[in-house]
Amino acid sequence: MTKKRAAIVGYGNIGKYVMEAIEASPDFEIAGVVRRNAADKPKEIAHLEVVDNITKLKNIDVAFLCTPTRSVEEQAKEILALGINTVDSYDIHGGIVDLRRELDKVAKESGSVAVLSAGWDPGSDSVVRALMEAIVPKGVTYTNFGPGMSMGHTVAVKAVEGVRAALSVTIPTGQGIHRRMVYIEVEPGYKFEEVAKAIKADDYFAHDETHVQQVDNVNDYIDMGHGVNLVRKGVSGKTHNQLMDFNMRINNPALTAQVLVAVARAGFKQQAGAYTMIEIPVIDMIYGEKEDLIRKLV
Amino acid sequence: MTKKRAAIVGYGNIGKYVMEAIEASPDFEIAGVVRRNAADKPKEIAHLEVVDNITKLKNIDVAFLCTPTRSVEEQAKEILALGINTVDSYDIHGGIVDLRRELDKVAKESGSVAVLSAGWDPGSDSVVRALMEAIVPKGVTYTNFGPGMSMGHTVAVKAVEGVRAALSVTIPTGQGIHRRMVYIEVEPGYKFEEVAKAIKADDYFAHDETHVQQVDNVNDYIDMGHGVNLVRKGVSGKTHNQLMDFNMRINNPALTAQVLVAVARAGFKQQAGAYTMIEIPVIDMIYGEKEDLIRKLV
Repeated sequence: MTKKRAAIVGYGNIGKYVMEAIEASPDFEIAGVVRRNAADKPKEIAHLEVVDNITKLKNIDVAFLCTPTRSVEEQAKEILALGINTVDSYDIHGGIVDLRRELDKVAKESGSVAVLSAGWDPGSDSVVRALMEAIVPKGVTYTNFGPGMSMGHTVAVKAVEGVRAALSVTIPTGQGIHRRMVYIEVEPGYKFEEVAKAIKADDYFAHDETHVQQVDNVNDYIDMGHGVNLVRKGVSGKTHNQLMDFNMRINNPALTAQVLVAVARAGFKQQAGAYTMIEIPVIDMIYGEKEDLIRKLV
Repeated sequence: MTKKRAAIVGYGNIGKYVMEAIEASPDFEIAGVVRRNAADKPKEIAHLEVVDNITKLKNIDVAFLCTPTRSVEEQAKEILALGINTVDSYDIHGGIVDLRRELDKVAKESGSVAVLSAGWDPGSDSVVRALMEAIVPKGVTYTNFGPGMSMGHTVAVKAVEGVRAALSVTIPTGQGIHRRMVYIEVEPGYKFEEVAKAIKADDYFAHDETHVQQVDNVNDYIDMGHGVNLVRKGVSGKTHNQLMDFNMRINNPALTAQVLVAVARAGFKQQAGAYTMIEIPVIDMIYGEKEDLIRKLV
């Protein structure tokens, strides 16, 4: 079997876990890492080729975009246009349909495949939500996140004046409603009460129950564990009270990275174009022969 | 929108719920019911055409096979050969790969689509198992059924000499191990203890903890509620202790029927051939426009 050659674009938290997930996969190999500053080469990637542009790597089959969500569209378009597949975990729910349209055009022109918004939410949770909707078409699904660190909310807190370091933890209180527990270090010269007030007034927090606490060292509170509870109650045919739920307690970046590997694998089995995870047969995401997988999993 | 014309083949428990699920679906209509004895027409289907052979119904797009598992292969082949799609809930796990090969041949020759083994297990549970395997590739998944009535085990008890009526309930005790609670009415002239012993010696029960109780009226114990707990613990990339589970508490035939409608819908979006549910994009199972569904569910 020829292994698929993967480029890791961006080497932050997700990039590190993608490296591990690729190393643990029998059908992929790492062709190199793409970083803005190619000279910045931590010892875990000392054995890898590190470049500042993907065109400097040879025979890449797929690029794992591990850079911030906001940069996904531009990077994906550039890479898809080279005829290289992409996978990303773009996570702004409201922007997914537009991103899909944009990437679909470029991918079809160049004969490549993009799988977008592939993490756990959006991502594997989306597949579960879609399945629940298919088998219980009437009813409500609630997605309850946490307890766990929210990347987006943590970034929002850090942007508030007077915050030196921050952590925002999401706590589920049911029915898709969440409490925000915010831990901050305060810059010298700022008053905690005023900084806390500014955080609570921020649009990210104004609509949720938010508690802000001052701590000496935010790093002592950081844990990459996260979780979700998806719950649906509804109607199949004309029969009410059909109950179902899905729960995870996981290391967040490790799961995201593994999902990216799964959809990269699936990408090679799709026609040119852009796909979200609910548009791809789940079997395509798994390593192995089709009939063996059917025998084991169906 | 032109509604897809459906034939319900077999009018037992599943057939009744399929009728309801089709009536509740905006994109299907019931073209008729196929029964061995077409004159046997219960009042709920008095308004429908009832025939003894599907060829007597006009312009059928899809046949819902609601007859016993053992008859699925023969019926599906006949109907697929007419260029009509089929869906079934064939549930002998060990026979699925072979059935798929057989139906795939016929379907490809006639340009039709078969979706097989589409209920909840095999069926929607298979999709969840496959998704869990994709995102946590190393580890073990346990499928814990119940509490709920097991059709297969109930049939097995009824076949034991001296049993007048029976019900076998599956109770999960964890790690895919199950206890069997069997309720029987005893034929006059037979001793309960001997009948109970024969049941426990039957291959369906010999390997599980089985309790047999004598009751006056088995019907007083029958409830179509059932459930499942799918649980996986394993490794994503190189990160251990990834935990996830999926749970349902549902009316069994109602869920099976709704799954059949979902995959019938999806069948029209696949190339000719035979498919299990893990080979079909979940989005194809849901009624609605693609971008609307992506916006809502991803």
